[in-house]
Amino acid sequence: MNPHTYAVIMAGGGGTRLWPLSRKETPKQLLPLLGKETLFQSTVARLEALFPPERILIVTVAEQARVMQEQVPAIPKENYLIEPAPRGTASVVALAAAVLQKRDPQAVMAIQTADHHIRNKDLFKYLIASAFDVAEKDYLVTLGITPTFPSTGYGYIQQGEPLPDEYKYPVYMVKRFKEKPDEATAQQLLQSGDHSWNSGMFVWKTSAIMAEFERQMPELFKVVSAIASAWDTPKREAVIQEHWSGLKSQTIDYGIMEHAEKVAVLPAGGLGWSDVGAWDSLFEVLLPDANGNVAVNAEHIEIDSHHTLVYSANSGRLMVTIGMDNVIVVDSGDVLLVCKADQAQRVRDVVEKLKKDKQEKYL
Amino acid sequence: MNPHTYAVIMAGGGGTRLWPLSRKETPKQLLPLLGKETLFQSTVARLEALFPPERILIVTVAEQARVMQEQVPAIPKENYLIEPAPRGTASVVALAAAVLQKRDPQAVMAIQTADHHIRNKDLFKYLIASAFDVAEKDYLVTLGITPTFPSTGYGYIQQGEPLPDEYKYPVYMVKRFKEKPDEATAQQLLQSGDHSWNSGMFVWKTSAIMAEFERQMPELFKVVSAIASAWDTPKREAVIQEHWSGLKSQTIDYGIMEHAEKVAVLPAGGLGWSDVGAWDSLFEVLLPDANGNVAVNAEHIEIDSHHTLVYSANSGRLMVTIGMDNVIVVDSGDVLLVCKADQAQRVRDVVEKLKKDKQEKYL
Repeated sequence: MNPHTYAVIMAGGGGTRLWPLSRKETPKQLLPLLGKETLFQSTVARLEALFPPERILIVTVAEQARVMQEQVPAIPKENYLIEPAPRGTASVVALAAAVLQKRDPQAVMAIQTADHHIRNKDLFKYLIASAFDVAEKDYLVTLGITPTFPSTGYGYIQQGEPLPDEYKYPVYMVKRFKEKPDEATAQQLLQSGDHSWNSGMFVWKTSAIMAEFERQMPELFKVVSAIASAWDTPKREAVIQEHWSGLKSQTIDYGIMEHAEKVAVLPAGGLGWSDVGAWDSLFEVLLPDANGNVAVNAEHIEIDSHHTLVYSANSGRLMVTIGMDNVIVVDSGDVLLVCKADQAQRVRDVVEKLKKDKQEKYL
Repeated sequence: MNPHTYAVIMAGGGGTRLWPLSRKETPKQLLPLLGKETLFQSTVARLEALFPPERILIVTVAEQARVMQEQVPAIPKENYLIEPAPRGTASVVALAAAVLQKRDPQAVMAIQTADHHIRNKDLFKYLIASAFDVAEKDYLVTLGITPTFPSTGYGYIQQGEPLPDEYKYPVYMVKRFKEKPDEATAQQLLQSGDHSWNSGMFVWKTSAIMAEFERQMPELFKVVSAIASAWDTPKREAVIQEHWSGLKSQTIDYGIMEHAEKVAVLPAGGLGWSDVGAWDSLFEVLLPDANGNVAVNAEHIEIDSHHTLVYSANSGRLMVTIGMDNVIVVDSGDVLLVCKADQAQRVRDVVEKLKKDKQEKYL
């Protein structure tokens, strides 16, 4: 790809629904959830097939940056942009765009998340390359995911007319962004055939997205422009300290995309994408045996058990299930979770309870 | 009670159905399954309310004797009768009876098991004292347990006419011993009102039981008589080595009781007896909270869970259940078991598989 293309990985999140494995100190993207690599390492590996390490940037918080540098030493230190405090994806994107724009006024950037899983890496390469072609024409490009079930957990993107120019991959104008729907609406959106899940992956010129920030979020635009100007000077820290904490938290979807002017979508099917948001979606990404059972890091003896995930953080533990169906068992060492698979979202309630009870050691 | 009364604890068993807690090295009776005391310690404590330690004997194997002496230092060392190899309960009883008979020709002995739980200790004392009264008249006395459900896991005792003499507690002649029944038969026996479970607890004069051994199992009688004669001499070990391994394995029920001449039964209700034979019966002995949940040695957070037992060998572990009903979770440290409560008997299948696979470290 052309030397002005960059990848920006957003990697600040926590992910309480994968507790007890994901904790404050070890968030989801830094764990080897699917095998030997962490989600963050897999994300970088996927992008290194498209970009040299110098053109991969990471926006994260200070504590996580240290672990990331150990996990992926190839990425230069100066490519880490440290957020002093989380202020939503709009701030992350604006900061990265402003800094990149200053380094390379012709920059085109792909926004990626650190904690998603993509099985079909070849299709991913092809899609990102196609998205860059579309972004060259000043579109803000979003990667949509063709829905496979009526999810109420994702935002949706409705596609409109195909783009006038022809591309290697079908591309459409975006008609509308829609927030997480209720179940009946999700069912309709799934059947409509013209809606995709909003994956949080975007491709655009820094100049195009900065123009939208200037128009729609002028205050944020001013702050990140000031920070970018001070970036390579001794004043960087002082400028960040002065402005960052005053920013309002906002998402890129709500703050920019919903009212942006030239927005296109590539609706991707067959990518094998998952946000690995909770134990049930992690379970779906793993390959089961003939009884639907999956064992990770554990020796598993099962009697009359089906669609059971046993997951141990301590390699080599023996886990036995008898008469279990649709059950997820997670052993983090200090905590043991046994959960009906279709109630995996309620792990969040446990974390809330532990917070309320000030059980810090388990958070 | 009179100075010729003794208790003999049979404590050789393994108990694979409480795996992964019960192992070769740490059989069921040596574990603190129900709290701080082991079942063996509770058994001795229960008997010490009736007998001084010098009149409590223990028949077991060498490895277990060492741990038992640590758990209950009050019992004199010479009261341990070591079986070189398990040969069934008939051999255990015969050995103990022969040795006791030699020490005290007027001995009356209560045969007890080391691995059962009895909640109502006062009633137990009363029953045993009553049984000794009956045994004085040369009866072989069995303690029956009034059935509370149609168990297919126990043998049954059918009672006949009440005994001619009057005792503090109702006593009946035994009409018949019945082996473990099928489900339909168990249902009938429960409804009959004249059947008890065979608890494996007996009271008799050593002279009376030795007479039955001589009549029904003359070979065993000869062997234990020879061993008893050599017991307090330097030849004890040599005599045991010579004869023991040639013995056929036999139970006291089949070998003696079924065809014994003067057999009485005390049918006990309300004793709160359990053989703690498997995880489901252990579960029944423990006192649950309002949702039917029990936590042993573990902090338990439950969401939408009912009739769930969480059991940890490592104190203080946090165990979380979400959407679980009738489930038993056992954490032994190296093994984790998650089992539908009504399939707890199948733990035995897991142990069989591990034996077949030569997974010694888990046995």
